[in-house]
Amino acid sequence: MNFISDNTAGASAPVMAAIAAANDGAAAAYGTDIWTQRVERLFAELFEHEVSVFLVTSGTAANALALACLTRPWGAVLTHQESHVADDECGAPEFFGDGAKLIGLPGTGNKITPESVTKVLARMREGALHQVQPQAVSIAQATECGLVYRPDEVRALKQAAEPRGLKLHMDGARFANALVTLGCSPAEITWKAGVDVLSFGGTKNGAWAAEAVVFFDQALAAEMKWRRKRAGHTLSKGRLIGAQFEGLLAGGHWLALARHANAMASRLSEAVARGGSVRLAWPCEANTAFLVLDAATQERLKAAGVGYHAWSDTALPDDAALASGDIVGRFVMSFATRSEDVEQLISLLNAPSR
Amino acid sequence: MNFISDNTAGASAPVMAAIAAANDGAAAAYGTDIWTQRVERLFAELFEHEVSVFLVTSGTAANALALACLTRPWGAVLTHQESHVADDECGAPEFFGDGAKLIGLPGTGNKITPESVTKVLARMREGALHQVQPQAVSIAQATECGLVYRPDEVRALKQAAEPRGLKLHMDGARFANALVTLGCSPAEITWKAGVDVLSFGGTKNGAWAAEAVVFFDQALAAEMKWRRKRAGHTLSKGRLIGAQFEGLLAGGHWLALARHANAMASRLSEAVARGGSVRLAWPCEANTAFLVLDAATQERLKAAGVGYHAWSDTALPDDAALASGDIVGRFVMSFATRSEDVEQLISLLNAPSR
Amino acid sequence: MNFISDNTAGASAPVMAAIAAANDGAAAAYGTDIWTQRVERLFAELFEHEVSVFLVTSGTAANALALACLTRPWGAVLTHQESHVADDECGAPEFFGDGAKLIGLPGTGNKITPESVTKVLARMREGALHQVQPQAVSIAQATECGLVYRPDEVRALKQAAEPRGLKLHMDGARFANALVTLGCSPAEITWKAGVDVLSFGGTKNGAWAAEAVVFFDQALAAEMKWRRKRAGHTLSKGRLIGAQFEGLLAGGHWLALARHANAMASRLSEAVARGGSVRLAWPCEANTAFLVLDAATQERLKAAGVGYHAWSDTALPDDAALASGDIVGRFVMSFATRSEDVEQLISLLNAPSR
Amino acid sequence: MNFISDNTAGASAPVMAAIAAANDGAAAAYGTDIWTQRVERLFAELFEHEVSVFLVTSGTAANALALACLTRPWGAVLTHQESHVADDECGAPEFFGDGAKLIGLPGTGNKITPESVTKVLARMREGALHQVQPQAVSIAQATECGLVYRPDEVRALKQAAEPRGLKLHMDGARFANALVTLGCSPAEITWKAGVDVLSFGGTKNGAWAAEAVVFFDQALAAEMKWRRKRAGHTLSKGRLIGAQFEGLLAGGHWLALARHANAMASRLSEAVARGGSVRLAWPCEANTAFLVLDAATQERLKAAGVGYHAWSDTALPDDAALASGDIVGRFVMSFATRSEDVEQLISLLNAPSR
Repeated sequence: MNFISDNTAGASAPVMAAIAAANDGAAAAYGTDIWTQRVERLFAELFEHEVSVFLVTSGTAANALALACLTRPWGAVLTHQESHVADDECGAPEFFGDGAKLIGLPGTGNKITPESVTKVLARMREGALHQVQPQAVSIAQATECGLVYRPDEVRALKQAAEPRGLKLHMDGARFANALVTLGCSPAEITWKAGVDVLSFGGTKNGAWAAEAVVFFDQALAAEMKWRRKRAGHTLSKGRLIGAQFEGLLAGGHWLALARHANAMASRLSEAVARGGSVRLAWPCEANTAFLVLDAATQERLKAAGVGYHAWSDTALPDDAALASGDIVGRFVMSFATRSEDVEQLISLLNAPSR
Repeated sequence: MNFISDNTAGASAPVMAAIAAANDGAAAAYGTDIWTQRVERLFAELFEHEVSVFLVTSGTAANALALACLTRPWGAVLTHQESHVADDECGAPEFFGDGAKLIGLPGTGNKITPESVTKVLARMREGALHQVQPQAVSIAQATECGLVYRPDEVRALKQAAEPRGLKLHMDGARFANALVTLGCSPAEITWKAGVDVLSFGGTKNGAWAAEAVVFFDQALAAEMKWRRKRAGHTLSKGRLIGAQFEGLLAGGHWLALARHANAMASRLSEAVARGGSVRLAWPCEANTAFLVLDAATQERLKAAGVGYHAWSDTALPDDAALASGDIVGRFVMSFATRSEDVEQLISLLNAPSR
Repeated sequence: MNFISDNTAGASAPVMAAIAAANDGAAAAYGTDIWTQRVERLFAELFEHEVSVFLVTSGTAANALALACLTRPWGAVLTHQESHVADDECGAPEFFGDGAKLIGLPGTGNKITPESVTKVLARMREGALHQVQPQAVSIAQATECGLVYRPDEVRALKQAAEPRGLKLHMDGARFANALVTLGCSPAEITWKAGVDVLSFGGTKNGAWAAEAVVFFDQALAAEMKWRRKRAGHTLSKGRLIGAQFEGLLAGGHWLALARHANAMASRLSEAVARGGSVRLAWPCEANTAFLVLDAATQERLKAAGVGYHAWSDTALPDDAALASGDIVGRFVMSFATRSEDVEQLISLLNAPSR
Repeated sequence: MNFISDNTAGASAPVMAAIAAANDGAAAAYGTDIWTQRVERLFAELFEHEVSVFLVTSGTAANALALACLTRPWGAVLTHQESHVADDECGAPEFFGDGAKLIGLPGTGNKITPESVTKVLARMREGALHQVQPQAVSIAQATECGLVYRPDEVRALKQAAEPRGLKLHMDGARFANALVTLGCSPAEITWKAGVDVLSFGGTKNGAWAAEAVVFFDQALAAEMKWRRKRAGHTLSKGRLIGAQFEGLLAGGHWLALARHANAMASRLSEAVARGGSVRLAWPCEANTAFLVLDAATQERLKAAGVGYHAWSDTALPDDAALASGDIVGRFVMSFATRSEDVEQLISLLNAPSR
């Protein structure tokens, strides 16, 4: 049983079918093909807003390119201190941003608050010579800890940042999972709440390698075509990504996939909440459950060959420190997670400890 | 009829089949999957040499990452002044190399000579403080003009560069096409001739998006994993690229594809060599023919809807300047080029001018 | 009265005399002159160690060049979250390091501890793909808060960092002030305690613009000449900096200057410790006193035209929060600070509040 | 006798006096001092135009910062292939420009022509995805070969570049020498002829280390303060540079210094023009003479201990190739060059060969 990540699965059948369907005849290169063009229109419809869209093959590329469009080399991005962009992309934002800086904010479950944005902005004077200039806020939806920002929370962050002119980026590697939880429209949780640029993730949600940088503020995209090209992220056979997104977006397939993953995570978290030896580290709001595991449970899982990640405990609430021997385990559900595997995992977790 | 590029086709059927076959079950992420691992072994066998292999999705990424491993930010790469890395990648080598410099050398048909390497090295003193330091030579095999370096030509370039410690990079976006022309082994035209790093192209030869950076000098690859990651080129579902290469390499499929493309180009170039109004700009040695087209021929092709690129005339031999109204047209053949289209093109080209 | 910084004064008379003495006849350019060469030998004698020395005109340049020699673009420097390199150089270390990252550690009075180094290293796995690689620790001696590391404290930091191969950089913009306080030899607080590279400050201590990057681990300096040159920091008339250092170092002049500045700060801090309305924010260990000022005192100073900096209160000990209306004021003494000004300041500070 | 460069002398007496005069009392730091402010006004008067001025200590810094303000990382600067920015600054423009590219143009005596600008622009399509975008032209006044652009030549370059929106930068490391030759006003050879940004050199003309980036198009300077700061080129004791410029500019001292240097060069070039074994490689128009020296003359100079640079012969006119054994020698005159040394050099050069 593999709950290590939602990137261990391949592509969903409709995505594969869309690729196969696109593999016919000659097409214009470098993203000028009709699949890519259709996808751009699909995104505009989906978000009820004119958008500039740039397709790439990795979430790291999407995030780093997006942030580079929002910052100058002496600029700074405010983000959670353990966010994916800050801690899991090996310095990609700094590379693409020619040295721009990420400033880490605290926050339980990897969510940041308007208060922490306000506080750091107060410390960094506008136009000051000696300090880097804050120019963007980046939040993950859902966060690395599986929590989801509500529209009013996003709006409050934007309001804290906007007086100083900061732009708002949303890392939506798991945007579909968050959206399913929220039950709102894509527009409500993005541009209507103040998001300027979204990294819209397809890979973790059933594509092979398909991410879209979606600019709601299209002026910010003015130089993106050169940024993407010189980063090697403008595929010559661009329809490969366009087709994946067509497969995902057609008929709400992407939401169905996310709904399944979220349901699997809900089933797990509800089951353990009723159980004994295991507790949720923080609420499970999307497709990932974080469980506090004692030593005996860790042993049982190991013996059963269950794959999961041991996670940082930094994001725990201040009053929920780990007992000795305990760890936080991350269990990620994907579109391909099988119900029977989740049930078996629940049995293992809720088994009486010796 | 579309002869614009060998990137206008999709993927070959065996490549698609290999992707489909790989889409089963969970796999380790970020290039640690078994498809990628198998491909690494395949490359070692193919080249009869231990190699370090890094798979990426674009030729620009492959070249820029490779060159970054060979140079320091104050280093310089000697390359043809109109090579792909110098003129068609929007500054990607400079970006990945943190400002490293490309120094353009002249040469007919985009081939550089040992003499030009020696000359520029003489002008740049070793260890000098004020000048960037030459650290690599990069050649394209085949060149942007469709010419092929012979093993002794490659060796002569390495011998000109080696006394100063320069490494040799080969941009093999069309490596298969060159190899088919040469008829030698992959080893003979690479490490045996002095190549340290090869960008092995799959995309133009029947893959969707599959390029491999192959290090024969494995010490040069020491930091490549971080370079690739922070450039956003480490796919989470890495088996997508691994599978494409499995499809290409199995049973010599890649060579069969290149053989077809080259045969189409040979047919065209031989036909026009016997014809009237059209001449070859320079020999056709791989899958691309460059033809000098007079105004009437340009008109005929336009009327027939034939797609091709008008090309720079800088690479023409000194004694072969264009007549007024003439242009150089590039006609690229791919694995998917149909014989009947080539025959129709020949008819159009050889039609008597009014 | 100006206590804003130790960079508001000009140069000491012996430094000016040394410049004038050097202004005679032709000299070799770009740091190959005899003044610079003599200074390099002086540093070797001073530190009782072979050193590689590179002279520059600003502390920001010295620090950023030094750190760039210790890190790769995907590397990280552990430093206090409000250190000068992290917070006052507008991203220079990130620029010179081609995107290398500074990771901020907490600590009272801007001193970091071995425990915080160990903790962050535990969180960043060695050789991990997704995270930047910790490669250096940077400490300021004295810190921005005027505190001084003892040799055993430096050694403990190195011991925490060394198992992972991190190098140790000391930002010695106020090295002379720290050394006077410590009373040890320059060797004891640098290479004998584990420092690999020192930014030796001259500017704040009586020079116009003279800083030296001193490599105790000379292998780390291998590429420094190119880094400095391409940053525009290799002066053509290099003797300008060489002469300043000759003036400073001759006859222990630099220590005499620092001794005066420290004495002025001691006088102030001792006087307020006995006084009423004012308290030290933390101990005064070098040439800078940080005082907690109530509103009435702020008024008095303002009325008297006293120049000082309002400082961040982040570095206060946890149990020493400010009362409402209070601020932390920074009062910096330099070689040029006049005793009578300090006495007048003391009178103002200790005046009975209304 | 040392004719190696105009950077081997120290500072002129008035410059030293100005520094001494500025060394009194406290001053605001980081370029906000009154000396710097006065100098900014002096430049505005000198050029009869509102200007934004940024003082730095090296020509490399001035040029690299100026060019970084004119280009994006995927931008290109057209400049002579052996200009100082292209060939003598170890990649500083690429570093400061985050990878921006310098494209080398040919030209006798290091002067470029409108025709060569037009030709390269024709080859680089506007807005093209795959190529870097030409954004600036950089010329040296005087050139590295001692030639001077006339106002109409500068204007013609701007006219060739302007339709594509390129900005014009002038590297004026020897601006004073050029101006003395031209006899026009500073305005006529700069903004009136189309120059947007000037690197105004003080160092080679009698200062220690004083260069000014002068923006005639002030909008281009919007971000310069951060660029300079994070490059470590914002001196804390900024009056050091301000005072040098006050010393230089007061009473036309800078022009007197340049007039002397030019006169020395004229005397030499006129004398050898009448002599025997030596000829001018190209006209001497400023303070540097380039002489073709046969082997016997080289021997005589060596025996007499005459210092000069052997120079590249690339800049020779096409019909003036060197005879075997001949070299081009560069002889640079400065404000400090003594008349008797020049006379002795002339005697040596014009001595009958054995």
